[in-house]
Amino acid sequence: MTTYFKRLREVVLERGPLCVGIDPHPSLLQAWGLPLSAQGAEKCARHVVNVLGEKVAAFKPQSAFFERYGSAGIAALERVIADIGPTGAMCILDAKRGDIGSTMEAYADAYLTDGSPLAADAITLSPYLGFGSLLPAIERAQKFERGVYILARTSNPEGASVQLALNEEGSVVQNIIDAATEFNRQSRQKAVGLVVGGTHTTLGCDLSDFNGSILVPGIGFQGGRMEDLPKLFGDAVEQVLAVVGRGVLSVGPDSQALRAKVAKLLG
Amino acid sequence: MTTYFKRLREVVLERGPLCVGIDPHPSLLQAWGLPLSAQGAEKCARHVVNVLGEKVAAFKPQSAFFERYGSAGIAALERVIADIGPTGAMCILDAKRGDIGSTMEAYADAYLTDGSPLAADAITLSPYLGFGSLLPAIERAQKFERGVYILARTSNPEGASVQLALNEEGSVVQNIIDAATEFNRQSRQKAVGLVVGGTHTTLGCDLSDFNGSILVPGIGFQGGRMEDLPKLFGDAVEQVLAVVGRGVLSVGPDSQALRAKVAKLLG
Repeated sequence: MTTYFKRLREVVLERGPLCVGIDPHPSLLQAWGLPLSAQGAEKCARHVVNVLGEKVAAFKPQSAFFERYGSAGIAALERVIADIGPTGAMCILDAKRGDIGSTMEAYADAYLTDGSPLAADAITLSPYLGFGSLLPAIERAQKFERGVYILARTSNPEGASVQLALNEEGSVVQNIIDAATEFNRQSRQKAVGLVVGGTHTTLGCDLSDFNGSILVPGIGFQGGRMEDLPKLFGDAVEQVLAVVGRGVLSVGPDSQALRAKVAKLLG
Repeated sequence: MTTYFKRLREVVLERGPLCVGIDPHPSLLQAWGLPLSAQGAEKCARHVVNVLGEKVAAFKPQSAFFERYGSAGIAALERVIADIGPTGAMCILDAKRGDIGSTMEAYADAYLTDGSPLAADAITLSPYLGFGSLLPAIERAQKFERGVYILARTSNPEGASVQLALNEEGSVVQNIIDAATEFNRQSRQKAVGLVVGGTHTTLGCDLSDFNGSILVPGIGFQGGRMEDLPKLFGDAVEQVLAVVGRGVLSVGPDSQALRAKVAKLLG
């Protein structure tokens, strides 16, 4: 194994900076002619992985769409994660977990530890309890050469009230960017990535020193456009992994159509 | 059924304002002589519910300690939730979920919707994406007469950098308190509660107008004390539901000892 950041960089160089969001929400399952059940979500997700697994750099399964079916949904998610591994694409589980102490460690046990049935290459974390509260997960990610993506500036308008609020050291989002940058600088493994929405006209934060991976949701359905990313992110655009979910899956289950959509997005 | 706020108030009047945290972390399972597995976590949790279910107002199972065992852990959590129902105690699932749009709805499907195997009386939510992002879950809670507890001021020191940051309308934590208060005032169901840590000497926010339930973790192991709650919360202390986790479960599995500990905490 090698570090998450290196594995990601290699696959992005080979396949391009696209992450396909796996969001088997009810209206998608209906459109695909699948039942609203753990089996339906599993069939949709594993089909996407089977068809696109060797074409894209990463998948981002959304945990909520499996949790909604209880333990049967989580069992399905385990099989989706297992399918992603051999494709060479990274598996970034979107779970937005965040807690403190032994609870944060338990999330790290679940999602960032070798041998766990839910272990992904990386997971998303939510920092309402402060960057420092996430250290048990960040350290575990490093130990197992996995990664984390911490929510910094999210794609939705309601996020500004928290993320652009100011403390003595600047804005909340800038604090998180700076803490992530410093952590990556000291550890050299660059296990800490950030989530920065692609829907904004200006970000309201400075990513120019940031040295890790930047996961950018909000492309397509939420209004962000691939072609605007260089203007929005400047030099940091090279670290960007763009997430397209509905924009890919809404073409339907036809394999050729799915591959054509991805090829078009990768330009 | 009646609303969550009313059901909680009735059981608190009868049994006192204590919520037992069900945190089957590895060191606890070891101390109880149980295996570090979904079966061990389930045995611990269901024993606590069986012994204390008619003595306490609420239980707060921590989702992370079940997620760490994957789908088997979630199946165990489903059975723990099912056991809590008939005891009359409220089940507050500590999951700290937070997302937007259809993803937030999927979490609401999982945890706040009749018929879901993981539906609890209330769940905890994390507002890094803004109070408004949580509305799909809040509205679902109302529809099914369940509740939510939104993280406001958490018990850990690292939380201040986010929670006490300032925007044009005041601090992040005060924004959330005010939005929750206003929502409860308009809906009259008081489905929105808040999480406010019991470890602070001063809270740094004003709860005097807040009209919902206040969940207060951090009592015992983290340094907060039951006897300090009136000073810390003022008149709002009547809305407080104090969470004790390790302080109860660390006495071991002996039924009499568990009941004696709860009786002592309830004074």
